[in-house]
Amino acid sequence: MRLLHTSDWHLGRQLHGVSLLPDQAHVLAQIVDIVREEAVDVVAIAGDIYDRSVPPAEAVELLGATLRSLCLELGRQVVLIAGNHDGPERLGFAAELLVDAGLHIAGPLRDSLSPVTLALAGGELDIFCLPYAGPATVRQVFGEAVSTHEEAMAALLRRVDDQRRADRPSVVMAHCFVDGGEESDSERPLSLGGADRVPAALFEPYTYTALGHLHRPQQRGAEHIRYSGSILKYSFSEAAHRKSVTLVDIAQGGDVAISQRELTPLRELRVLEGPLDTLLRQGESDPRREDYICARLTDTAAQLDVMGKLRALYPNVLQAQLLAREYNGQGPVASREMLKKSHLDLFGEFFEEVQGEPLARDQADYLKAVLDTLHAEGGL
Amino acid sequence: MRLLHTSDWHLGRQLHGVSLLPDQAHVLAQIVDIVREEAVDVVAIAGDIYDRSVPPAEAVELLGATLRSLCLELGRQVVLIAGNHDGPERLGFAAELLVDAGLHIAGPLRDSLSPVTLALAGGELDIFCLPYAGPATVRQVFGEAVSTHEEAMAALLRRVDDQRRADRPSVVMAHCFVDGGEESDSERPLSLGGADRVPAALFEPYTYTALGHLHRPQQRGAEHIRYSGSILKYSFSEAAHRKSVTLVDIAQGGDVAISQRELTPLRELRVLEGPLDTLLRQGESDPRREDYICARLTDTAAQLDVMGKLRALYPNVLQAQLLAREYNGQGPVASREMLKKSHLDLFGEFFEEVQGEPLARDQADYLKAVLDTLHAEGGL
Repeated sequence: MRLLHTSDWHLGRQLHGVSLLPDQAHVLAQIVDIVREEAVDVVAIAGDIYDRSVPPAEAVELLGATLRSLCLELGRQVVLIAGNHDGPERLGFAAELLVDAGLHIAGPLRDSLSPVTLALAGGELDIFCLPYAGPATVRQVFGEAVSTHEEAMAALLRRVDDQRRADRPSVVMAHCFVDGGEESDSERPLSLGGADRVPAALFEPYTYTALGHLHRPQQRGAEHIRYSGSILKYSFSEAAHRKSVTLVDIAQGGDVAISQRELTPLRELRVLEGPLDTLLRQGESDPRREDYICARLTDTAAQLDVMGKLRALYPNVLQAQLLAREYNGQGPVASREMLKKSHLDLFGEFFEEVQGEPLARDQADYLKAVLDTLHAEGGL
Repeated sequence: MRLLHTSDWHLGRQLHGVSLLPDQAHVLAQIVDIVREEAVDVVAIAGDIYDRSVPPAEAVELLGATLRSLCLELGRQVVLIAGNHDGPERLGFAAELLVDAGLHIAGPLRDSLSPVTLALAGGELDIFCLPYAGPATVRQVFGEAVSTHEEAMAALLRRVDDQRRADRPSVVMAHCFVDGGEESDSERPLSLGGADRVPAALFEPYTYTALGHLHRPQQRGAEHIRYSGSILKYSFSEAAHRKSVTLVDIAQGGDVAISQRELTPLRELRVLEGPLDTLLRQGESDPRREDYICARLTDTAAQLDVMGKLRALYPNVLQAQLLAREYNGQGPVASREMLKKSHLDLFGEFFEEVQGEPLARDQADYLKAVLDTLHAEGGL
């Protein structure tokens, strides 16, 4: 039995104001190809299908088209759970009516945690779906006095254990923060102060645990407890990530073999660092100018219209950081130097930079009078 | 073959700020009962399923539960089209994956208008689904130069005719404004100035046309071209309506027999008219105090805290209109009398009404000084 584990699609997400739908469609088409090429039996999507509870209509259409390809054209089973970004009721619409088509959606947490049992060519497989549920939800649905994410997950897994069969491999799908997991800048915290952590050991007993929430592919505690990671880099903190899907071969006896298939984005996310002139010169011969760029500029001299200059070469530059305005390699030295300067000096430098000539004497005098008045009135 | 025609569910709608979801759930349960009792083969819902393109999550859940009852528990076919209130992409999510469960959703207008062909016990039936589409949408999807709703509908029906089979009854489902139809206050105009009208004759050739948009049940042009009307009264202008669903028996040869089954609301919409004291006295022995009430008060004397007094007896009073403040049966006489009075007199009467005693001399003097100042400055 071959399972493809993916998560954190975040359909409809924007990056610095730019819609990523074309990028998402690009990698979802790759996933469909992988499912076909690798003879995957079941696709498990471990939450954060959408980026928000009310996704844009185009994201709804993209998900619909992808599920149609997987379920109707390829005839595979798809199991998906709601993550903390999803609106569980909306995601779970008509779930029971979709089962015959091979689509199994776990939207809101229900008091029955009976598994999705799939009769595959290689045997029968139980998939236990745990949509994202904080302690408050678990208290409400099961009436159990849980106060942490760990207690909540333990309560859910006790119910899984009640229904688990020893003669059948069991996959758990969950959307949570497993202790020690490596974060990136694009996950929304489940709660504050570390109370959202769940120990990996809870998932030890199951054949495989398909996790969602963290955006870097990683195993937690053991090889069969894994985050597949997101399908795209959703922050520049992930520039060094390799995004992938996880292929899991499950033997009827419960042995698992795990491999990864890398996803190739339509546009890479790259961080370029150096003086503006150097970046612009390199840009002229850059074969991947369409990539999403974060430019970290080390110039110590001020630069005007940085984004405009960069965009002429890198049309999808999203961010420019002026590092040297804050530090010059040894810390925030430039800033300290600037703090020593008077408002008059600072404005004078700015004026000269913009106008190409220094303040005239009468201009400087007028400015000084304005600044003195402001000082006297406590405005500076 | 028995078809149940309904439309304009408007799930998630509010009436004067009050959620109607419990009322909607109440009548949808009746529709499920009617489908069971009357051995209905197919339920046709002619648009405005939701009240807006992004409905509240509870409305999504109610629709899901109703469709589950109809398709899974009763095993009937359900065909539904998007109306002008629906978000077609959202409504059409995973439509192809729902077909096997007996649910046929026409969300966005597609360039194929091939019918839903149902093989029922009584024979085969073609249902042509025309989701709401204005001229602009028809131009975009079919590239035809249509500029009115009539031309748009004619263009769609030409495509229906291309695929219509003479040996099979054909049902058209459409969401539009058929010329001469009786409106109420709760429909949202499709366009301004009457350009939204479609002649009934366009639908003459088909076995039955199941229309949505107008909220009063009515036939247009011929008995087999009908609006089922909404499931609830969505404005006080509909207080006299009888809401119902339409049962359509279709013989394989194309003969139709039509009947209606009335729906009983959880709470009626009623307009009560008379002096406040009379309404309050009647309210004490009113067996249906939970109804939604619009009170049209004929008092000529001012009344204080009208809504509070009414709500004590009618907890769901939604609106109070003070008719006599504008007219006393012969026109706006009271208003004219009031217009003759000075601001000082008007305020003095108001003060006495609220305080139970007239303005004291010094109060009147002070008020007069304020009013004189306002007059002098052009503020009155």
